[in-house]
Amino acid sequence: MFKGVDHVAIAVNNIEESLKFYSEVLGLDPGPVETSAEQGVRAVHIPVGQGSIELIEPLSSDSGVGRFLERRGEGLHHICLGVEDVDKELGNLAAKGVQLLDKKGRPGLRGKVGFLHPGAARGVLIELSQEE
Amino acid sequence: MFKGVDHVAIAVNNIEESLKFYSEVLGLDPGPVETSAEQGVRAVHIPVGQGSIELIEPLSSDSGVGRFLERRGEGLHHICLGVEDVDKELGNLAAKGVQLLDKKGRPGLRGKVGFLHPGAARGVLIELSQEE
Repeated sequence: MFKGVDHVAIAVNNIEESLKFYSEVLGLDPGPVETSAEQGVRAVHIPVGQGSIELIEPLSSDSGVGRFLERRGEGLHHICLGVEDVDKELGNLAAKGVQLLDKKGRPGLRGKVGFLHPGAARGVLIELSQEE
Repeated sequence: MFKGVDHVAIAVNNIEESLKFYSEVLGLDPGPVETSAEQGVRAVHIPVGQGSIELIEPLSSDSGVGRFLERRGEGLHHICLGVEDVDKELGNLAAKGVQLLDKKGRPGLRGKVGFLHPGAARGVLIELSQEE
C-alpha cells in the first residue's frame, strides 16, 4: 500500500531565506521553486536520497499554511506517504471511516495527491501522493 | 553526505493509543516498543518503504518530549536524516558555526545519533543517524 516516506513538508515564512540552511549549510541541492495558486503556496523540493524535504511558503496569510504559520510559527507541517493509487487508498480509508480533506486525488505540484484530515491521525497532517 | 530521510518522529501521549491508527487503519507493521531511559522516551518505529515513522512518548512530563507535548500537543516532532558518519557530519556542521545539541554522536535506539539545535534550522529539530 505505502511505498515510503515521499517527503516531509516544512512551513516557512520565506523560501529563499530558509533555503540557505538546506543548500549552503547542509549542502543539499534544491529543485526549482514552484508556485501553486490552487494550493496557495510557493514550494520547493529538496531531494535527500529517495525522499525529499519540501519547503512551503503561503501566498497569503488566510490560506491553510498561512494560518498554520500564524498559529504555530515555522516548523514541520505535514508528512507525505507515496502510494501506487491515491484514489484507491482514499477510498479504502473513507470506507474505514477515516476523516479526509480530499475524497479523491487532485493534481499536486508533483503527481496526484490527497490529504487526510489532521484529526484522523491525532493532529498529524498526512498527504498521500502518486507519481504521474 | 545524506543518505535519505531515515524517519519522521511524532510526539504522542500514548504509543498504544496512537499505534491503532498506523497499524489498524493504515495497515502498517510496527516494530517493538522500546524504552530509552537515557532519552526519556518510549518509542516505536513503523517501517514505511526505506524510511519509517517513529512514535515517541515521554517517560516524564519534564523531559524534552514531555515539554513539547505540553506546549504544542501531539504532532510532528523531528526529522531524522541518515548519514554515513555522525561524528564527521556533526564536526563539519560545528565548523560552519551551526548550533548543535550533540557535539558528538551518542547511542540512539537504532544506531548512533546526534541532534542539531532546533534554532539551527529555524525551529525544525533535525537528527542525524548512522546505522551500526
